[in-house]
Amino acid sequence: MTRWTLPPDRIPSAWYNVLPRFETPMDPPLHPGTRQPIGPDDLAPLFPMGLILQEVSSDPWIDIPGDVLDILRLWRPTPLVRAVRLEQALGTPARIYFKDESVSPAGSHKPNTAVPQAYYNKVEGITRLTTETGAGQWGTALSFACAQFDMDCLVYMVRTSFESKPYRKIMMQTWGAQCVPSPVDDPSHPGSLGSAITDAVRDAVGRDDTHYALGSVLNHVLLHQTVIGLEAREQLELAGERLPDVVIAPCGGGSNLGGVALPFYEDPSVRLVAVEPSSCPTLTEGRFEYDFGDTGGMTPLLPMYTLGHDFIPPTIHAGGLRYHGDAPIVSKLVHDGRMEAVAYPQGKVFEAALLFARAEGKIPAPEAAHGIRAAIDEALAAKETGEEKVILFNYCGHGHLDLQAYDDYLSGRLMD
Amino acid sequence: MTRWTLPPDRIPSAWYNVLPRFETPMDPPLHPGTRQPIGPDDLAPLFPMGLILQEVSSDPWIDIPGDVLDILRLWRPTPLVRAVRLEQALGTPARIYFKDESVSPAGSHKPNTAVPQAYYNKVEGITRLTTETGAGQWGTALSFACAQFDMDCLVYMVRTSFESKPYRKIMMQTWGAQCVPSPVDDPSHPGSLGSAITDAVRDAVGRDDTHYALGSVLNHVLLHQTVIGLEAREQLELAGERLPDVVIAPCGGGSNLGGVALPFYEDPSVRLVAVEPSSCPTLTEGRFEYDFGDTGGMTPLLPMYTLGHDFIPPTIHAGGLRYHGDAPIVSKLVHDGRMEAVAYPQGKVFEAALLFARAEGKIPAPEAAHGIRAAIDEALAAKETGEEKVILFNYCGHGHLDLQAYDDYLSGRLMD
Repeated sequence: MTRWTLPPDRIPSAWYNVLPRFETPMDPPLHPGTRQPIGPDDLAPLFPMGLILQEVSSDPWIDIPGDVLDILRLWRPTPLVRAVRLEQALGTPARIYFKDESVSPAGSHKPNTAVPQAYYNKVEGITRLTTETGAGQWGTALSFACAQFDMDCLVYMVRTSFESKPYRKIMMQTWGAQCVPSPVDDPSHPGSLGSAITDAVRDAVGRDDTHYALGSVLNHVLLHQTVIGLEAREQLELAGERLPDVVIAPCGGGSNLGGVALPFYEDPSVRLVAVEPSSCPTLTEGRFEYDFGDTGGMTPLLPMYTLGHDFIPPTIHAGGLRYHGDAPIVSKLVHDGRMEAVAYPQGKVFEAALLFARAEGKIPAPEAAHGIRAAIDEALAAKETGEEKVILFNYCGHGHLDLQAYDDYLSGRLMD
Repeated sequence: MTRWTLPPDRIPSAWYNVLPRFETPMDPPLHPGTRQPIGPDDLAPLFPMGLILQEVSSDPWIDIPGDVLDILRLWRPTPLVRAVRLEQALGTPARIYFKDESVSPAGSHKPNTAVPQAYYNKVEGITRLTTETGAGQWGTALSFACAQFDMDCLVYMVRTSFESKPYRKIMMQTWGAQCVPSPVDDPSHPGSLGSAITDAVRDAVGRDDTHYALGSVLNHVLLHQTVIGLEAREQLELAGERLPDVVIAPCGGGSNLGGVALPFYEDPSVRLVAVEPSSCPTLTEGRFEYDFGDTGGMTPLLPMYTLGHDFIPPTIHAGGLRYHGDAPIVSKLVHDGRMEAVAYPQGKVFEAALLFARAEGKIPAPEAAHGIRAAIDEALAAKETGEEKVILFNYCGHGHLDLQAYDDYLSGRLMD
């Protein structure tokens, strides 16, 4: 067997909350104006109380509502796959596993949090959500979730992606959402995740029926993604495998990384590794300090690794990794020495993507390919030492809507 | 539960061969020159003997080779899903199930036969395969299969698709295959499946290291696809469900239809329904007679429903259904009265696709949406009569690379 599925009734029934398990508390978010710690009421114009309470919850486990489970079961549990053909191609004694999050309707891990976010807003009477999206993974996920709950959805898409990647926009529209380019007030600006957040927040603050939804960074987002790691633990056991030596995932804002890694936080033998693009090296070259989540300075200040909220990353194919900061939880793990970080240039990433695609048959999103690159390098290191290392990485999304990037790579047009 | 998975070790170990189960024998293929029945040797320049023998086999079950199973297990068994949310949206008492073939590497049912075709060629020493492709589903599938067996692959793609749908071409190249527009000798011709077959056959006949692979129509192709229906039967039982009242699938050449329907052939209570585009109405308006499989008249003459081998269907989004004929097995079933056929215009098909996408979260390929349209109409008929009908349809592929079609539909540019 090289693939372990679980029936839909074996989906985790509670999320793993890392907050009460930290030995030292997280630094609080600060109000953008007063620079004082913010309370739940400060967030109420943007988020429903159900999510705000999760943001600071001290419960070690948080039950997943039944209505959310019903929708997650459309694709969850996702398969755990042993990449035997990749191992053979590398000639490594390592055993490489990946969690296949590409099987969701939107093709990535993002619906894991889009569904509960839509749900908690819906039960508190909100009928419309706004959000930002880079490459479009998050925008499609929220569009899908809003369709499930009959809610309106408006997605501000980073303008360069809006213009160069029409397919994810059409996907959003197919699910009934509206998608507009950002920044809305400057048609000549290429945009960034930070500026699209500003647009979406401004819209939500201005309307009573509307809240804002964020696809990464915040504690509740990482919380919702922990189904990934929880399922992976169960499936590794099903496979008769020991705990992994290393758990790897790409890191943009940090949500898929948190999702697969946090359920291994309390196992000190398990190394946790974040992978980022060297063109947006937040964890490997950023500063750990308070910074805004958006470009316009409208969000609370968060304690995180950052390249500065006015940093506009170069246009790379892994649009989902173009963010100036990182989730406070991920930042704390790296700052505390519990998590490592590595950075790769695009060319090395696509080399890994192609090797994976030809061996395993699956064509990864450029974001996912960052994790594959690091997993391959861990496997090659194990080949040097002869170690039977167990590697787990998160295959966070497919590349069906990123094929232009492969064309660029194959024809030598891809730049590092 | 609304989704039934099976572990990879529960994959069927033998294909269901309908040929010896027919009460009357199939009419034989005829030599294109002599118009006499052809023998195995006539096909040897194009196909390996392993496949030629399957084409005429009288064994009721044919074992699936272990090396083939190992690759099919990368995604099989595929899930059986009950479309509860679609049922609710329709307000029908019918129970609607679909077999999700979109989870394969190439995103459709096509790899089910691409893998064994590559395998049987490989073991007989062939190192290179040629084929034709319309929208690209079959070309991507064969490219994937050839990558798994380290074989070269050259895909002749219908020129209109080659130019308007670059993504599937890039997918083929990502898996290491070569893709060229067809007809090769007339750059001003839009091409058709029939003319691309001519190109691919001519190439294969000219080289000793090369064979030709066909993605539909032939008996061995439908044979390989029967894993779909075999798994569906087992999963329906797992779901505590009775035999379906009706099994539905889109029909281009007939392979996904044969795959899901043939394992129900011997259950007379199960209606079998083929769905085709009204712009290429082979089964509903064609003649049942001997005709060539290709435009150029190079292939054997097959007993089938046909619109004439020189019929060039209008350009529609469901490129995989643009074929002038039908599989002889499917044609016999329809001619014998065992299978029904219906035809729909594009607009009705996309209306169904959108309803399905918003209810179930999955965006179907235009080809797959034909089956969804018919399933919805069966469910609406059951609503009229109050019948608790059990409907099974084959979800033969996702529409991630067909989103332009959705944009056309949503913006009112789609033509019937």
